[in-house]
Amino acid sequence: MAKARYAIGVDYGTNSVRALVIDVDSGEEIASHVVPYPSGSAGILLDKKDPNLARQNPADYVSGFLKAVSTAVRTAAKTKKFDAAQVVGLGIDTTGSTPIPVAEDGTPLAWQPRFKKNLAAQAWLWKDHTAHEEAAIITETAKKTGAPYLAKCGGTYSSEWFWSKIWHCQRAHPEVFRAAHSWVECCDFVPAVITGNLDPRTMKRSICAAGHKAMYAEAWGGLPSREFLGTLSPELGRLRERLYEKAVPSDQPAGRLNAETARKTGLPVGIPVAVGAFDAHTGAVGAGIRPGVLVKIIGTSTCDMMVAPGGRKLPDIPGLCGIVPGSILPGSFGLEAGQSAVGDIFNWFVSHLCPPEYAKGDRHVNLTRVAEKIAPGASGLIALDWNNGNRTILVDPLLSGLLVGQTLHTTAPEIYRALVEATAFGALTIIRRFEEYGVEVREVVNCGGIAEKNAFVMQIYADVLDRPMKISRSSQTCALGSAIFGAVVGGAYRTAEEAQGRIAGAKTKVYRPIAKNAAIYGELYAIYRRLHDAFGQAGWSGSLDRAMKDLFALRERTRKG
Amino acid sequence: MAKARYAIGVDYGTNSVRALVIDVDSGEEIASHVVPYPSGSAGILLDKKDPNLARQNPADYVSGFLKAVSTAVRTAAKTKKFDAAQVVGLGIDTTGSTPIPVAEDGTPLAWQPRFKKNLAAQAWLWKDHTAHEEAAIITETAKKTGAPYLAKCGGTYSSEWFWSKIWHCQRAHPEVFRAAHSWVECCDFVPAVITGNLDPRTMKRSICAAGHKAMYAEAWGGLPSREFLGTLSPELGRLRERLYEKAVPSDQPAGRLNAETARKTGLPVGIPVAVGAFDAHTGAVGAGIRPGVLVKIIGTSTCDMMVAPGGRKLPDIPGLCGIVPGSILPGSFGLEAGQSAVGDIFNWFVSHLCPPEYAKGDRHVNLTRVAEKIAPGASGLIALDWNNGNRTILVDPLLSGLLVGQTLHTTAPEIYRALVEATAFGALTIIRRFEEYGVEVREVVNCGGIAEKNAFVMQIYADVLDRPMKISRSSQTCALGSAIFGAVVGGAYRTAEEAQGRIAGAKTKVYRPIAKNAAIYGELYAIYRRLHDAFGQAGWSGSLDRAMKDLFALRERTRKG
Repeated sequence: MAKARYAIGVDYGTNSVRALVIDVDSGEEIASHVVPYPSGSAGILLDKKDPNLARQNPADYVSGFLKAVSTAVRTAAKTKKFDAAQVVGLGIDTTGSTPIPVAEDGTPLAWQPRFKKNLAAQAWLWKDHTAHEEAAIITETAKKTGAPYLAKCGGTYSSEWFWSKIWHCQRAHPEVFRAAHSWVECCDFVPAVITGNLDPRTMKRSICAAGHKAMYAEAWGGLPSREFLGTLSPELGRLRERLYEKAVPSDQPAGRLNAETARKTGLPVGIPVAVGAFDAHTGAVGAGIRPGVLVKIIGTSTCDMMVAPGGRKLPDIPGLCGIVPGSILPGSFGLEAGQSAVGDIFNWFVSHLCPPEYAKGDRHVNLTRVAEKIAPGASGLIALDWNNGNRTILVDPLLSGLLVGQTLHTTAPEIYRALVEATAFGALTIIRRFEEYGVEVREVVNCGGIAEKNAFVMQIYADVLDRPMKISRSSQTCALGSAIFGAVVGGAYRTAEEAQGRIAGAKTKVYRPIAKNAAIYGELYAIYRRLHDAFGQAGWSGSLDRAMKDLFALRERTRKG
Repeated sequence: MAKARYAIGVDYGTNSVRALVIDVDSGEEIASHVVPYPSGSAGILLDKKDPNLARQNPADYVSGFLKAVSTAVRTAAKTKKFDAAQVVGLGIDTTGSTPIPVAEDGTPLAWQPRFKKNLAAQAWLWKDHTAHEEAAIITETAKKTGAPYLAKCGGTYSSEWFWSKIWHCQRAHPEVFRAAHSWVECCDFVPAVITGNLDPRTMKRSICAAGHKAMYAEAWGGLPSREFLGTLSPELGRLRERLYEKAVPSDQPAGRLNAETARKTGLPVGIPVAVGAFDAHTGAVGAGIRPGVLVKIIGTSTCDMMVAPGGRKLPDIPGLCGIVPGSILPGSFGLEAGQSAVGDIFNWFVSHLCPPEYAKGDRHVNLTRVAEKIAPGASGLIALDWNNGNRTILVDPLLSGLLVGQTLHTTAPEIYRALVEATAFGALTIIRRFEEYGVEVREVVNCGGIAEKNAFVMQIYADVLDRPMKISRSSQTCALGSAIFGAVVGGAYRTAEEAQGRIAGAKTKVYRPIAKNAAIYGELYAIYRRLHDAFGQAGWSGSLDRAMKDLFALRERTRKG
């Protein structure tokens, strides 16, 4: 019997970092360890005066890596079979876009005493929204000048993304911008640190971060042109040459683990470290993404990931967050979509509108117990899932929630169910958009706590999406995906797909659509779509005067069973 | 000093009857007594199999009269000044349309042993909705045949009204219909009983009931033609000649109090009894209605009453419940509008969606304490007040509630406030409709518990309606209005207006619009109206894609103060 081989995946979330040790042949998850970031509030640096601000201390990424990996390795070593010397590679995923301003030597400005306390010199966390004005101007400028740069990210640039944040820094905190030689995404920073190559000119840059958030595409020669950036601001134009020319996928090594990191973690010196990627993207890999399979990572919000074979030409798809070659699986197009709020909407309802009779104990469980018995259509309610705006397909953060159909008898569980259904209708809208542009969705693999634990939500999703709902086998999908890339760069597999075939996949439990429910939801979705288009799209011309009557008729019909 | 004179008003509500004794010169309310109806559930006969059914036992009206009036008279007599011999007249108001099938001698069929338990032989309470199919056919037939009968009741006939109910009885319970010689409105039945003239051919019929609910108008010769009714059903056509030719206002006597009733109540034999009317109409009189003053009777739903001078020609006003000469004040047009749910919407919210932190003690008070501090526009929410359909101006029971603008931070008090505002926007829509057709609304007098006790709601109404909100001085406005007609037929005043000048009116406390709030509500109303028209009116062509953004912008602006 051949010696066992291991890989390590390191997953940087919003509040903590997780290290996972796997057996690359069996896929067995040997050990894992989570380290919360020590700085700020749950790892986030906030500003009382500005609710849009969310930063992180880059030092937390380094200390978190060392503690999470070394502990996971030590824990693994307690099993008799594991030997750290047999770790073949390591992969990393992080949140994003989370750019960090760095000095000429690649160290974060935040590590210089004069910038230590300066919030603008820290990592600009993905959910920082201080740059909404810059995002709007970037979108407008691209449209006005006919620049092609938004074609691959749905036509609208976001305040969460690379250039918006950097430009906002230049406008609002010029002293930080001037001191920054370059900017590095978190998912590029961590591999750079642990391989010992911090030089911004030569460190490897992730195609996932570059393509989805920085308007990078080979079609137009990499990053947007100096001219375009210069139209926004001359300083931004000049920054371009201090960034990068080329970005690469995660089946390529960023470098080899340096001696210091190896010593502090107990790993072998020189093992390959994969180029980083975003968490949702490695999560999709860990969940077994392949053409025809949509991976939904469901949490407070969702990421909806697809891949399409890289050989053929793929059209631009309006409203998507991004279409990037190699961003999920090298050699395939990676497609990213998402819903701005899913679990957050359910949590909002139970926090703010749960009546006392459902408030003792787990409110979700109490409401679900009644809500799961309500027949589709029987409440006469329909909702839009926009309490936090709409990410895909409308790309509009200023949209808001809507509930229609309430009577004097409408109950809390009925509304709770309507909100779950609304998120399913939002998910279906994304699937329809994929399919309108030729990307077929045959099945859905769901990841996250809701997917694993909530049969009520998953059955509604099966019925509304009218497709089997599978659940990712691993509950550490993102870290598993990173470990897969660690295994690939470590030579255990030739491709990520080959590794997926052995390691990734779904549980045996599958939620299958119930035909009768799916038919009713088909009718309800037609009403959802009318509301979606009426409130979400300029230039819509239709009518809503039948909406309440259609809901009433459906209610009468479904109540009679 | 002249001897004091008294009048009695008797007000039949949905669950109880109230008798009020007033001093006709000072308006002082000397005594009152309320008697709940003994039959059924809170006075209503229900059918477990049909939630639309609501009937009453006509015997309750007679026993209730005797008990309420005799007790009020005895209570009044305990004051030293009152002497029953000085009661000059008596007036009556009831719910409606509440028709009762009667035998040839005018006694209710329900009093015959064979019909005692037959629900179809009882009084068909105003809120009975068993006849929704008949109502729809009546509306359709009038439209198809070009018959003018719906011109004075807003263009749509209701399942709550006279002909729908009688026709439904004929179709569903032909044995009762065949046994009924005639049908008598509750407000005509009570005066007939106490004056001893039950003969359906000669008893006085209320113009208020006839004009608002039975498509009666002098313009087309009284009730709808035998031909029109015969189109619906030959039996209905034949019934017409067993009903009435003429209906009269309440400043005319229905007759004189008969000896038996006088003996049982302690009142003088032979005092005049005024022709009956509906409760909201006498309520408007008791609140001091006059041209330019809208009287809002706010309860679970509202009635919105106006009068217009009788001399000039008044156009038909689409969407109104009725325009009837003399139905409120003799000599003036009486105009009736209404909202299907107001207090009921607030009660729905606190019953079904009030979180625990506001649930201890009076939930309305707890929510109000926070809601009253929210600036207009600052929640970013807007609602439609249609949880029970829309009575005016859309006349559509199948419409339902709508809430828009919710985020992940929206709170229960914010929604509570939005619902209050929605009912105010509904009220404004009625006022606008009046004014579009030349009926000016200069001030509003509000009646009912919410008006008397709820400064939070009343200030929002003042700000939204942008008019002073007055509160009726009496809290027994309907009974007071009936007493006024008792005083008029008793000779104490020549006209109801003359009596109102002395007796009726508003409290000194007036809620005045705050200009800054009124301006914001003007902007919010524009959004409400877009939603109202989009969801409520066929053929609407407009756009809603700015609605959420306008709410967001308003929120940002008003939060900054």
